[in-house]
Amino acid sequence: PPSPLQPPGLPLAPCRSFSNNKIPVELDESSGVAMMKFKSPPVNSLSLEFLTEFSISLEKLENDRACRGVIITSAVPKIFSSGLDITEMCGKSMEHYSEFWRAVQEMWLRLYGSNMVTVAAVNGSSPAGGCLVALSCDYRIMAENPKFSIGLNEAQLGIVAPFWFKDTFVNVVGQRIAERSLQLGSLHPAPEAHKLGLVDELVPEEKLMEKAAAVMAQWLALPDHARQLTKTMMRKAVLDRLVAHREEDIKNFITFISKESIQKSLRMYMEMLKKKK
Amino acid sequence: PPSPLQPPGLPLAPCRSFSNNKIPVELDESSGVAMMKFKSPPVNSLSLEFLTEFSISLEKLENDRACRGVIITSAVPKIFSSGLDITEMCGKSMEHYSEFWRAVQEMWLRLYGSNMVTVAAVNGSSPAGGCLVALSCDYRIMAENPKFSIGLNEAQLGIVAPFWFKDTFVNVVGQRIAERSLQLGSLHPAPEAHKLGLVDELVPEEKLMEKAAAVMAQWLALPDHARQLTKTMMRKAVLDRLVAHREEDIKNFITFISKESIQKSLRMYMEMLKKKK
Amino acid sequence: PPSPLQPPGLPLAPCRSFSNNKIPVELDESSGVAMMKFKSPPVNSLSLEFLTEFSISLEKLENDRACRGVIITSAVPKIFSSGLDITEMCGKSMEHYSEFWRAVQEMWLRLYGSNMVTVAAVNGSSPAGGCLVALSCDYRIMAENPKFSIGLNEAQLGIVAPFWFKDTFVNVVGQRIAERSLQLGSLHPAPEAHKLGLVDELVPEEKLMEKAAAVMAQWLALPDHARQLTKTMMRKAVLDRLVAHREEDIKNFITFISKESIQKSLRMYMEMLKKKK
Repeated sequence: PPSPLQPPGLPLAPCRSFSNNKIPVELDESSGVAMMKFKSPPVNSLSLEFLTEFSISLEKLENDRACRGVIITSAVPKIFSSGLDITEMCGKSMEHYSEFWRAVQEMWLRLYGSNMVTVAAVNGSSPAGGCLVALSCDYRIMAENPKFSIGLNEAQLGIVAPFWFKDTFVNVVGQRIAERSLQLGSLHPAPEAHKLGLVDELVPEEKLMEKAAAVMAQWLALPDHARQLTKTMMRKAVLDRLVAHREEDIKNFITFISKESIQKSLRMYMEMLKKKK
Repeated sequence: PPSPLQPPGLPLAPCRSFSNNKIPVELDESSGVAMMKFKSPPVNSLSLEFLTEFSISLEKLENDRACRGVIITSAVPKIFSSGLDITEMCGKSMEHYSEFWRAVQEMWLRLYGSNMVTVAAVNGSSPAGGCLVALSCDYRIMAENPKFSIGLNEAQLGIVAPFWFKDTFVNVVGQRIAERSLQLGSLHPAPEAHKLGLVDELVPEEKLMEKAAAVMAQWLALPDHARQLTKTMMRKAVLDRLVAHREEDIKNFITFISKESIQKSLRMYMEMLKKKK
Repeated sequence: PPSPLQPPGLPLAPCRSFSNNKIPVELDESSGVAMMKFKSPPVNSLSLEFLTEFSISLEKLENDRACRGVIITSAVPKIFSSGLDITEMCGKSMEHYSEFWRAVQEMWLRLYGSNMVTVAAVNGSSPAGGCLVALSCDYRIMAENPKFSIGLNEAQLGIVAPFWFKDTFVNVVGQRIAERSLQLGSLHPAPEAHKLGLVDELVPEEKLMEKAAAVMAQWLALPDHARQLTKTMMRKAVLDRLVAHREEDIKNFITFISKESIQKSLRMYMEMLKKKK
């Protein structure tokens, strides 16, 4: 079947693929749009390897003059991304925690600060770090399936979303909704997420990629330079805050995650997940 | 009648009462929920005595491991709280004004910064300082009676809401609505308050306490620690601003309230209130 | 026909007129309301001369004890204001660019920081700088004609709205909507603008002035002093940011506008406008 970015009846556009491990990327050179598909079953969890590949691909596309926009979606049914990989945070060394957290920061700095147009086509559930990926894009379209939910549910697991997750969330839904949602660790079903402004648009699942391509085309109709400067102006304050406190943020994460009480609850959570299977 | 926090048919939960003067408090040890009822007729005005008792009770509950959440409501029909007691601001000494204003600040710092879950069950009108009390909670449920209104109406009386009242208001409704509402000193009837986001939910008056208990149970289903750290992260910037400018804010209040023009309009306002009776 | 500010059947109120060049102003001394009508055909573009006259008139009214509020509207059919005059930014000297930009800043500082109640009666399209004028008022009423649109569409022209345009916009519609609207350079038809909160109210075009007068009367029912202090408190942070970076902002504008690429696209844009006629 033709790609949704490929108008029917036209010859195939030149298309380059790379990074075929966990996140296959296809760049359509005629439209300037890259498609990134999270393909790390069972739940696209953000492991160190996944995050590293994500950041490298973003950097490649950022530096590729042929690429002006990225659509981010999932190749795994029912899940966009389950968020940070808990196995990276459990029973590992301080050095590992540090390396992992720096990779989480790096991914966000690249995505939230990207000069490209970034559209999230959320075709499944998207808790915690998965939600952060969607929040960091310019526009969020979600499949209107009420079984899919999205939110920063860290508080449900007894952990606290970092301040820059919070800043990104507040920039999207405002302070009042963020206070409640973050304290309750809410996972909002798609229709509720749309009502709160957490996602910009709902479409039937089978129309999701078509809609994402149409939205992308609308954004790419603008000249890049002015749009990029505008985006930087809008997001700079929040990006700068992490840049200024990056090492401190890593230290805080290590101190927190190394606590025996936290390790214990993460182990229990992992046991529970295993039993579910 | 059984407490709304007491499921029917179960034996009475152990329950401790204290502070029976202006704000009776009942702590249900089985649920961890305290009920504070403003009971200072005719209008629950926030006098120095009321504020002091309020802050002491909040501090007691904060330090009581048996208490995890507080529902704040009124025992006086038709009124939640009428706000700051004007008699404390009229014809008194500088020392008195200073002591009074410090007590207003103290109440807000304790309530807005509370580690407990705080739910306002707004069962009557709630102007000015009464609105501030509601705004400082985590969640606001209001009786859907359109005769009950809520808002920071200071401008109507010719006075200006302090910056931390304003910050709290903006955190709830955003800048645009806050600009208009504060400049007009609007008192919003319950349905309008709900539409603006000033209250989170409307329920029929007879269901108010039941709903407050249900909401509280939902919030208490979360582990305390992560929720508390999240709340602190969300509210710290606004709390810190008052802490940093507390003495200056007291001086500003004294200078303002001592002006003959202000004293005159407060006296006229008090005369008007007396005639109303 | 009687002025909408003039109740029918009453003797004519004393009325002073001034500034009859590009922006006729009529001050109704009985109500304390001035009416400013942009009358600079074909499109009320904000030229250096227009901006200077606008600022001088605002200053006069500000210092006139008889004036408490201003209604700003257009005497040109279908257009409120087309925004900054491109001829002022094209093929001129550095000195001219500097003088022009300072005049834009001056207008905004006076209008956004005005002590008077300011109501925009938006009776036509209002792109870019025209939108800024409306955003800087206390309240925006727009004719409900879907052919009229409003927005900061600078990105469409390949240029970037200055940070204080952005700050003013964010204060009205919030961060999420501002990010999208500014990046896309959207011109929102009146009904959409209303839905986004960009304008506060829509009315049929023939009722616009009547409604503006009614809204003004509602705002003027409040004592001036408390309202003015409240407004200053709400807007000070954003005003101070430009005051602190005013010279830097002028330098940035000159550097940007002097670029050959920008000059070229402005020339092309002007050619296009000429052909449209």
